[in-house]
Amino acid sequence: MKIEGIQSRSIWPTPDGSVEVIDQTKLPHRFATVRLSSMADAIHAINAMTVRGAPLIGATGAYGLAFSLRNDPSDDGLDSAYKMLLATRPTAVNLRWSLDRVRNAVLNRPRAERADAAWREAAVICDEDVATCRRIGEHGFALLRKMSSEKAGPLNILTHCNAGWLACVDWGTALAPIYMAHDHGIPLHVWVDETRPRNQGASLTAFELGSHGVNHTIVADNAGGHLMQRRDVDLAIVGADRVTRNGDVANKIGTYLKALAAKDNDVPFYVALPSSTIDWTLASGNLIPIEERAESEVTTMTGRLPDGRIATVEIVPQGSDAANPGFDVTPARLVTGFITEAGICEAGEQGLRRLFPEMK
Amino acid sequence: MKIEGIQSRSIWPTPDGSVEVIDQTKLPHRFATVRLSSMADAIHAINAMTVRGAPLIGATGAYGLAFSLRNDPSDDGLDSAYKMLLATRPTAVNLRWSLDRVRNAVLNRPRAERADAAWREAAVICDEDVATCRRIGEHGFALLRKMSSEKAGPLNILTHCNAGWLACVDWGTALAPIYMAHDHGIPLHVWVDETRPRNQGASLTAFELGSHGVNHTIVADNAGGHLMQRRDVDLAIVGADRVTRNGDVANKIGTYLKALAAKDNDVPFYVALPSSTIDWTLASGNLIPIEERAESEVTTMTGRLPDGRIATVEIVPQGSDAANPGFDVTPARLVTGFITEAGICEAGEQGLRRLFPEMK
Repeated sequence: MKIEGIQSRSIWPTPDGSVEVIDQTKLPHRFATVRLSSMADAIHAINAMTVRGAPLIGATGAYGLAFSLRNDPSDDGLDSAYKMLLATRPTAVNLRWSLDRVRNAVLNRPRAERADAAWREAAVICDEDVATCRRIGEHGFALLRKMSSEKAGPLNILTHCNAGWLACVDWGTALAPIYMAHDHGIPLHVWVDETRPRNQGASLTAFELGSHGVNHTIVADNAGGHLMQRRDVDLAIVGADRVTRNGDVANKIGTYLKALAAKDNDVPFYVALPSSTIDWTLASGNLIPIEERAESEVTTMTGRLPDGRIATVEIVPQGSDAANPGFDVTPARLVTGFITEAGICEAGEQGLRRLFPEMK
Repeated sequence: MKIEGIQSRSIWPTPDGSVEVIDQTKLPHRFATVRLSSMADAIHAINAMTVRGAPLIGATGAYGLAFSLRNDPSDDGLDSAYKMLLATRPTAVNLRWSLDRVRNAVLNRPRAERADAAWREAAVICDEDVATCRRIGEHGFALLRKMSSEKAGPLNILTHCNAGWLACVDWGTALAPIYMAHDHGIPLHVWVDETRPRNQGASLTAFELGSHGVNHTIVADNAGGHLMQRRDVDLAIVGADRVTRNGDVANKIGTYLKALAAKDNDVPFYVALPSSTIDWTLASGNLIPIEERAESEVTTMTGRLPDGRIATVEIVPQGSDAANPGFDVTPARLVTGFITEAGICEAGEQGLRRLFPEMK
């Protein structure tokens, strides 16, 4: 995607063997990049949500493993780095998938070659992610084009959290179809859930859509049900952090509530995902570990003061506790369909196996 | 209720014929009161949400009408003031109910007596509200005591927005049963929805519960469905801004989403309300006007800076629009029961008529 006219990815290698990422904790107030040169840098970037979004976490983890192999290419070093990286975020499964890919790419190689092989594999993962997201976009675009042709006026799409190009390497998952539809002149408008506590909607999705010129409106997370009741939402598209074999979807906390409202109002509810988000090893969503994050994400809010400075304010009474589960699980029965790189299918094991017959 | 040991109401008359209210826009960071001495003061207090909560809006409107009659006790003056006050907040119906009471109390009186009669009626409305909320509390307390006796450990109650004593004159509606249960030693814990965009949960409900020593945890509005899925909510209790004859419930935006999640997880979902919140003139909830409030409530957040100063930060990209519907409607089919001053009933016309047979 372009930022101020310059073609950009969310992660890119530098000539000196580091990678740079956009510091997503600073958006939408500042556009800043951060250089990652070690596994510790990668771990910190994932933990602190400098980078976030299941595919981008996977890409960052892959580079993190490559960094670690420069220092210690032994089998023990590989195992230990794999485990440390995997522990950074427990819910998204793309991280495990990409760490597995890097590990498999280096395991049978001499130690002296491992770091370079890992680096190349990380770059391949990134390039593949771009191609995968483009295909997700194309399949979703066909859906949006059809829906748009069946109604007058702009298509109203609700999305939760950020599943755009900032969450991936480029294009995004849930937002890729929207960008393509917009670029093809299909009139559309996006309802952007704020997505407390980290505000990925109000900060990142609104930033992405605004930068690309897509018409959008930010709403409190509480509003989506009412918008659906009054027929102001034609469909919802969200991303996913992990989809189990039976089609249950772990995604950013609050997704489940929007899926319930969509079902109650006959609004189609789609989940866009690359196949790397499918966890074929888990039978159902109740087995997905749900990350509990810091209280401070709930008790504070960061934004721009009137003088332009960035400040964090405390918004709860002193002495009140907070809880912060990062994800919830939307049962497959509430999902209209999955938009994947291999096409669109119904949410469930049968649909997934039809699109990905090679998976055992 | 008590604030730092002193018995307090949310609105009280002063010896010089004004009323004082707690400035709820300053909580939980500052405890400050505001003096209202004119109809314009009352209108501003309601519009700016210095006071909020359906019963307290009603009480403030009643005093506002009394103020206006001091200046112009004519029939025309009465009509005009009634209309201006009624227009301040369109969704809650208690305001109309209390303005009707004051108007009926003065209509057949000489002009010279009208202001005093209105003032007395406003005071009666306040006293009755306290008694009504106490009875709501007693009926709800019986329910909580029964539920608590059937489980080990604390009863986990989820609430949305603020329907405590700050929303009423004293006690509250949804929170009154909780205070009584707490005072009787029933172990309980309250999940407090933050309630974006105005954060009445994180600021007012958490402040109330903390001041009263009730164990509570603030969560993002997105979290409630997940908490119910993992069986961490035994019941939900919310307030209401208007209940139609068929039992549909207008309440703070987001209530509908929690009711859907409660239904999906077999969690009892109760609405606590005084009968003044029932709009017998409306057949169903889709007829309730939903207030659209200012974008700035969504695009900003107010809180404490590290140095203790209060600041408002902008949290969205420059150029992004926001929408801010203030309420949504929860269909009666999602509500387990109504907790009223006359007892608990099923959500629907039959239940309401059984408790309030005198209403035509």
